[in-house]
Amino acid sequence: MKKTMDAVILPHRLLLIVTICSSLVVDASFVSTSMSCGAGDMDMSMGNLIPMRREVHGDGRILDITHRYTKDMPSWLSSNGIGQFLWLPNSMKNGSITNNSEMKLPTHTGTHVDAPGHIFDNYFDAGFDVDTLDLAILNGPALLLDVPRDSNLTAQVMKNLNIPKGISRVLFRTLNTDRRLMWKKEFDTSYVGFTNDGSQWLVDNTDIKLIGIDYLSVAAYDDLISPHQILLKSTEIILVEGLKLDDVVPGIYDLHCLPLRLLGAEGSPIRCILIK
Amino acid sequence: MKKTMDAVILPHRLLLIVTICSSLVVDASFVSTSMSCGAGDMDMSMGNLIPMRREVHGDGRILDITHRYTKDMPSWLSSNGIGQFLWLPNSMKNGSITNNSEMKLPTHTGTHVDAPGHIFDNYFDAGFDVDTLDLAILNGPALLLDVPRDSNLTAQVMKNLNIPKGISRVLFRTLNTDRRLMWKKEFDTSYVGFTNDGSQWLVDNTDIKLIGIDYLSVAAYDDLISPHQILLKSTEIILVEGLKLDDVVPGIYDLHCLPLRLLGAEGSPIRCILIK
Repeated sequence: MKKTMDAVILPHRLLLIVTICSSLVVDASFVSTSMSCGAGDMDMSMGNLIPMRREVHGDGRILDITHRYTKDMPSWLSSNGIGQFLWLPNSMKNGSITNNSEMKLPTHTGTHVDAPGHIFDNYFDAGFDVDTLDLAILNGPALLLDVPRDSNLTAQVMKNLNIPKGISRVLFRTLNTDRRLMWKKEFDTSYVGFTNDGSQWLVDNTDIKLIGIDYLSVAAYDDLISPHQILLKSTEIILVEGLKLDDVVPGIYDLHCLPLRLLGAEGSPIRCILIK
Repeated sequence: MKKTMDAVILPHRLLLIVTICSSLVVDASFVSTSMSCGAGDMDMSMGNLIPMRREVHGDGRILDITHRYTKDMPSWLSSNGIGQFLWLPNSMKNGSITNNSEMKLPTHTGTHVDAPGHIFDNYFDAGFDVDTLDLAILNGPALLLDVPRDSNLTAQVMKNLNIPKGISRVLFRTLNTDRRLMWKKEFDTSYVGFTNDGSQWLVDNTDIKLIGIDYLSVAAYDDLISPHQILLKSTEIILVEGLKLDDVVPGIYDLHCLPLRLLGAEGSPIRCILIK
């Protein structure tokens, strides 16, 4: 709230914040992790209100590593983004006593989780949906790692990372973050992901049960299916895709990733945070 | 995983678990917090697989206080539940290389959060959506309290609870939980909720910034709007509705509630957990 008070004291700074935040409405893809927009409890006169829109919360203690849903976020194989995902069938402007929106989304949109039924149809039929994912894996200490920028996630790359045994959760930050692919409307097949031998090495040589990646698929585009199969076959590894890992210092954090309890769904939008 | 191993050793117990879990497919509203279904990594032969479906994770350390989305969960003013919310436009049975479902839900369905734009149209226009909610409020120590079963949440009830100053997050367990209203398909207007004076008392006399309740509205049905207005006016209090508080021992827990980052939405499905 400190920034809010500064804004009251310094009108020219307030103007700057208003300008930045207004641009958010037009182009929501323009957000940096350090930005925190506007007023919140600054001006409750119901006049010139501007909500706070943060990537970092609680004085820097909580980092939001989830991408905001916007119509211009990338969608698999599309050039046009995900498009409209929200409607307002009940609107106060049309006489409703409340505003009540409705959402429609492919379950593998934006920051999301894959359940085993995504890639194995017998798992799908058996009910290995997102509601069966283990919250003890989705919540706990995680290692954020930078990987070399000149390669897919191969066995050699995995080996060179020297991930200690006992590490259960790893978020892999790649060239995808540098290229800001998740901030671009156009789907880009040249993203970095796991190869067959990279995923097999990880299964054979580490204790990892949660893998996070910074674009829409854990697997490289040229070898899309096999790495998913290798990682999801045991039903013990959880894949979180489309993470927002910009401007986070590598290291160990408390990770909390919470998907929706969608009975029967092989994927779900997920909200992920890191706590220092 | 212990139960899983037991099931391997005791075939008759496995049969029992199979029976319970099969019934889940037919009637997903039949779930108790102590149930944990099935096999997981027990039998990876791709044959008779049964996923684990848990309310408690990590050997009792993590309690899921979110209702599973099912077609038969209650929907506001409806007798028919929420109905179908999931489709499978891309199915492996129809030749797709993966299963990819699509979800469609009113944003105030099941366990969900209200943003200020839900009840104030000027806040809605100003952008006070679920993406502006403070993660420092949504994550932190919370008090789970039982309230008297013979009353709405009035000022007198609030006063008698003696909630200490400094408590930021309170989950109120009411008669709604005893009556299992969130497990019933038919919407029930006789649920318990806050009255005007109850919500005003809370704003005036406590430091509470997050209120959790165990049915679809924080406000009693006969006075639906004003309590919402009183609680949301400052934009500093977050309302989490439709929580699953069955069989949780009252006390202090680490609460993690994570809504989706839906730009422009005045509500969102939310996943909430308690960690001991």
